[in-house]
Amino acid sequence: MARFFVAASNIFGGIAYINGKDAEHAKVLRLRKGEIVVVCDGKGTDYSCRVKSSSPGTVEAEIIGKAPSAGEPDVDVTVYAAWPKGDKTETIVQKTVELGAKSIVFYPSERCVSRPDDISASKKCARLARIAEEAAKQCGRGIIPEVRFVSSYDDMLLEASRNELALFFYEEGGESLRDVIAAKPASVSVITGPEGGFEPSEAARAADMRFITATLGARILRCETAPAIAVSSVMLLTGNLG
Amino acid sequence: MARFFVAASNIFGGIAYINGKDAEHAKVLRLRKGEIVVVCDGKGTDYSCRVKSSSPGTVEAEIIGKAPSAGEPDVDVTVYAAWPKGDKTETIVQKTVELGAKSIVFYPSERCVSRPDDISASKKCARLARIAEEAAKQCGRGIIPEVRFVSSYDDMLLEASRNELALFFYEEGGESLRDVIAAKPASVSVITGPEGGFEPSEAARAADMRFITATLGARILRCETAPAIAVSSVMLLTGNLG
Repeated sequence: MARFFVAASNIFGGIAYINGKDAEHAKVLRLRKGEIVVVCDGKGTDYSCRVKSSSPGTVEAEIIGKAPSAGEPDVDVTVYAAWPKGDKTETIVQKTVELGAKSIVFYPSERCVSRPDDISASKKCARLARIAEEAAKQCGRGIIPEVRFVSSYDDMLLEASRNELALFFYEEGGESLRDVIAAKPASVSVITGPEGGFEPSEAARAADMRFITATLGARILRCETAPAIAVSSVMLLTGNLG
Repeated sequence: MARFFVAASNIFGGIAYINGKDAEHAKVLRLRKGEIVVVCDGKGTDYSCRVKSSSPGTVEAEIIGKAPSAGEPDVDVTVYAAWPKGDKTETIVQKTVELGAKSIVFYPSERCVSRPDDISASKKCARLARIAEEAAKQCGRGIIPEVRFVSSYDDMLLEASRNELALFFYEEGGESLRDVIAAKPASVSVITGPEGGFEPSEAARAADMRFITATLGARILRCETAPAIAVSSVMLLTGNLG
């Protein structure tokens, strides 16, 4: 069944209005009157709709049912990833969106080779937001995860510490996720490092703030692999990966 | 600590001989007499060695200890992946090796766009074997996983059915891995489909052969993401991901 994201403001009076880029998509699919489509408001709700009318610029579809988006997990996971080199940012965003992350936040770490200034980081995040949107549509998410950055390691720690469970994935070892995730947390921070790993002083600062130092095992995962595996592991252990 | 793979036949008489390409690597690292290195025989054993002599072509290192490679899981996972388009084969091999797969086997499926003949498939697998080797070295595996192919879907099912646990990941839904992996299996087959998913008749044939139809959740994972997530999930639930 065709599935569209629209702005929440395009859903009112029992009708979902698909227009702009999504209407172009609808046109390609040759939606016909009476056809059933799913319209997602990007806030976690999917609307079953019957196409009422379809013109080149706008599709109007009558709402016949609504339900929470099946693709949304019941735990909010924010990924904090150290800026990697080159196009690894894209891999991190695409994969963690597929696996159910709510937000992806890039931050600078001592051993980062890539250290964009705020202007460059803003541009990168704008581009990555489009990748998040594509990935969200492709895999059937109910929201479009946000992509942003923080300008310092300590700001990252402070923000990440606010979630119910804050996991610091350290290549030098730590606790197994199976031991850490017992009851289902409402919100989880997943922190992964750069290509060269964390400085011991960075790991110490996280431990001082009572982050849980966690491991993904004896094999050294690449910096673009670790975020996806950390997110999928949290999803699996909280019943959000089937 | 520097780590080298050598042929098992290069380890005898209490000495590990690092030569050929690995010796070039050693030269780059400027190994010195007395230095401690790890030499892996590619069969799951790591040897701690002290460098005895180092010449341009060969490094001789005295064995001072041995242990099972820490990077090897205690469950043998074989990935059966439908031939994907383009360079997704590389992603599948690189990521599943990082996550601990023992073998990666490509197979043809009804909806595969890429359908290499045996000659072309052999060439692809030879190239992918080098990617497996690089990934194994990079992440600290104790073996170099093999990459091969089977020529038909039914041959794949027959081979995959021989492992203790055979998991058929179906995009239309199935059992949760948390319910399926209770006791630790010795060997697991992980079967994932092509871009367009499995034909219902293919899923039915797997079910007829008593494969367990499993799910990776409500979000549709890309065909190059699913194998890595399936392997990491098996590793997590069997205590092999930390």
